[in-house]
Amino acid sequence: MSATKSSAEHMREVLARYVDCMTRGDCEGIMALYADDAVVEDPVGSPPRRGREEIAELYRNAAGKVRLELDGRPRVAANTAAAPMIGRAQGMPGMVIEIVDVMTFDDEGRITSMRAYWSPETIRPE
Amino acid sequence: MSATKSSAEHMREVLARYVDCMTRGDCEGIMALYADDAVVEDPVGSPPRRGREEIAELYRNAAGKVRLELDGRPRVAANTAAAPMIGRAQGMPGMVIEIVDVMTFDDEGRITSMRAYWSPETIRPE
Repeated sequence: MSATKSSAEHMREVLARYVDCMTRGDCEGIMALYADDAVVEDPVGSPPRRGREEIAELYRNAAGKVRLELDGRPRVAANTAAAPMIGRAQGMPGMVIEIVDVMTFDDEGRITSMRAYWSPETIRPE
Repeated sequence: MSATKSSAEHMREVLARYVDCMTRGDCEGIMALYADDAVVEDPVGSPPRRGREEIAELYRNAAGKVRLELDGRPRVAANTAAAPMIGRAQGMPGMVIEIVDVMTFDDEGRITSMRAYWSPETIRPE
């Protein structure tokens, strides 16, 4: 993490990179944002995925298959960010998924945890 | 919690009531939404408040002093909801606070935890 950037700026940059990598299908780009011992719960309520291998499996299946965009600015607080998003999944034309991703960061600015708040109840017609 | 309502509907109703009570300054109305042993971290990064007494102290200071509105639909997932909001605080004319409140609910539909994601970095001109 660049010493010239505030933590808030850095977290917002990571979020922007994350939605861009998801949309472009850049699985490696996403994994570069994560710490080795990160935990991902996507969606919240599903079994957490721990460590690079389990997390990469998720993104190999998801990256490039959902177009993500930030829906307003990520809400940064301490070492965390809660980012409202809109997703448009392949195979669900005309529908949008309303999402909030909550990410926690370590001192090096890598993501240590990600929890994705969405469910069938947050999917609606465009 | 009404047996005829889905958990998602109920959580969204609680969120709507919460922002209404905050805006109207109805501290008792807010506390009625909470479980006895709830934990509140507002903002994220500050010392958690545990139990009715510590939580009521927060709302006696805050309710009625910030106008809250939901900014899109709460993202419900399992027994949780992540709700993007906009706040307008007394004494900060022309400024808005961008917030995400994440709430967890028990089987009776009461809030057991609330974490509010906001900071000086999420305050901006209207």
